[in-house]
Amino acid sequence: MAKKVDVAVVGATGMVGQKMIEVLAERKFPFANLKLLASSRSAGQVLMVGGKEYRVEEITPAAFDGIDYAFFSAGESISKEYGPEAARRGAVVIDNSNAFRMEEGVPLVVPEVNPDAAKDHKGIIANPNCSTIQMVVVLKPLQDKMPLKRVVAATYQAVSGAGKEAVDELKQQSLDYLEGKEVKAEYIPGKGAKRKYQIAFNMVPQLDVFVEDGYCKEEVKMLNESRKIMGLPELAVTATTVRVPVMNGHSIALNVEFKGSLSAAEARSILNNAPGLIVMDNTDQLEYPMPLFADGDDAVYVGRIRPDYTVEHGLNLWVVADNIRKGAATNSIQIAELLL
Amino acid sequence: MAKKVDVAVVGATGMVGQKMIEVLAERKFPFANLKLLASSRSAGQVLMVGGKEYRVEEITPAAFDGIDYAFFSAGESISKEYGPEAARRGAVVIDNSNAFRMEEGVPLVVPEVNPDAAKDHKGIIANPNCSTIQMVVVLKPLQDKMPLKRVVAATYQAVSGAGKEAVDELKQQSLDYLEGKEVKAEYIPGKGAKRKYQIAFNMVPQLDVFVEDGYCKEEVKMLNESRKIMGLPELAVTATTVRVPVMNGHSIALNVEFKGSLSAAEARSILNNAPGLIVMDNTDQLEYPMPLFADGDDAVYVGRIRPDYTVEHGLNLWVVADNIRKGAATNSIQIAELLL
Repeated sequence: MAKKVDVAVVGATGMVGQKMIEVLAERKFPFANLKLLASSRSAGQVLMVGGKEYRVEEITPAAFDGIDYAFFSAGESISKEYGPEAARRGAVVIDNSNAFRMEEGVPLVVPEVNPDAAKDHKGIIANPNCSTIQMVVVLKPLQDKMPLKRVVAATYQAVSGAGKEAVDELKQQSLDYLEGKEVKAEYIPGKGAKRKYQIAFNMVPQLDVFVEDGYCKEEVKMLNESRKIMGLPELAVTATTVRVPVMNGHSIALNVEFKGSLSAAEARSILNNAPGLIVMDNTDQLEYPMPLFADGDDAVYVGRIRPDYTVEHGLNLWVVADNIRKGAATNSIQIAELLL
Repeated sequence: MAKKVDVAVVGATGMVGQKMIEVLAERKFPFANLKLLASSRSAGQVLMVGGKEYRVEEITPAAFDGIDYAFFSAGESISKEYGPEAARRGAVVIDNSNAFRMEEGVPLVVPEVNPDAAKDHKGIIANPNCSTIQMVVVLKPLQDKMPLKRVVAATYQAVSGAGKEAVDELKQQSLDYLEGKEVKAEYIPGKGAKRKYQIAFNMVPQLDVFVEDGYCKEEVKMLNESRKIMGLPELAVTATTVRVPVMNGHSIALNVEFKGSLSAAEARSILNNAPGLIVMDNTDQLEYPMPLFADGDDAVYVGRIRPDYTVEHGLNLWVVADNIRKGAATNSIQIAELLL
């Protein structure tokens, strides 16, 4: 049995933080002590973990003394302020924010894709963006068989990615809209955005802020992060990211062009044998992945695998995963498991 | 003023039929007599059109005697049974079903794209599939400036495309789901489908039946119909079509590759001057098309126009339209207007 370690979860009262605690217990992560940290606003709350009560403490630099693994999911500014501090005090920081992902020397890890990268850390390991994770879990085994030429992605992203309040807002908006009441919008496209839009019964083609050339940051992340994770600095990925009225579970329509021949049947067989993936692709029985059914599961689901006849070597695929689990909490815990 | 004509609407009590009647009145289509036709089940209902009462009559071959324009939207089998009959009795049939779209000699018309084709009819003109219409309204003016090489489309299609019952079902499912009640599913992916799925807070990556190579029919329609409408038999279009929990208004993420250089700014300017289109593309102000706001409008909205750096000459765009209006009813009436 692995030696026991001391663990901290930063952002313990948030959607991903709570899921991290759940996944730590579920996967029997060998922790001796568990410290739940959050802002002063949430400190004092009591959470149940494996039948035991844990009081949420306020985050301070000293709180990381003696911690072996610190899982951060409290936003970019908290990660920037306390991540390096926690690492300096000896913790391995596994950070779910955007703070360090593209920083040189910080491994960006999806255990099914680049597990070895985790070992080269200097105290901080970054957990990739949710939509990138589920995309590269599918792309990696295909790339290993036949090099990728170009990827066109269109996403269908759940509101859970915008936090607990956004999920509550989708529920409230849906009820208010159906009852003919005024609909209030605060969280989509983002809490700090200059305009807010109803997401219930709507599609909002923006995730994160707009950065350059008409792209929003989520679209840029899908390019840059997949290049870094897959170790393919020239990989061509273009994305359109869209927020949809789903509580939890991101979907992606993936169009993939390869440098040589790879049939749909070959791809199906490769994906069937790849780690972390479940192929659900039986159109005769109308079986394909859907977010409502991937919700609560750690696997990445893939289906609708079919040839694209508009290029020499092309495939279309449909990829669905629980963005809070595999896209955030589970992937973070899996990274720590690589190091144990 | 145009001479008055006698008009029939077949499927007058359905979602598209009712919208056709509304649009006929709204656009002051010069009808003398208006005959509302439906199955025996719906016959006898009384509908108000322009402040006047109209009784819905049962469809029979003789009902088309004296009719100049017959707008069909009652499904493929009714179109096949009565369409040629109506044409034989002298009516110009404008058919919104899939019955005749790919038939040689039957024009498939989007007035902004191929208006001249309408004149070559032999009694029947087909109205294209909804998602195809909004796509070609955007592609045509671009193609006129710079030939298209390849199009990758991912759709986000509203339940109104599956009929009034599907819209009611989305509402009911949303309420039942939020109240923790059992959710019933009857209409998605299709009324006759061997499995039915909840669409509320879900994504269903299937429209119409599966046909071949893992493609569903909607995806095949988007290829074949756009080739026919645009008069480009070699046009390369690959699509993934997805039903989303939106009442009305289809969205499409379009990735377009051209044979030569076309910048995002040039595309924006071309689309700004093209018929039937509204460019809504100001990312500084977080302005882009969304189905909730295109609902009720006849225009095709386009935004998120940006360069795709993964190919030599590529653009990404986001296209939204009211699928019941421009995707069905309005386009049908506009076809008749071409002939007046």
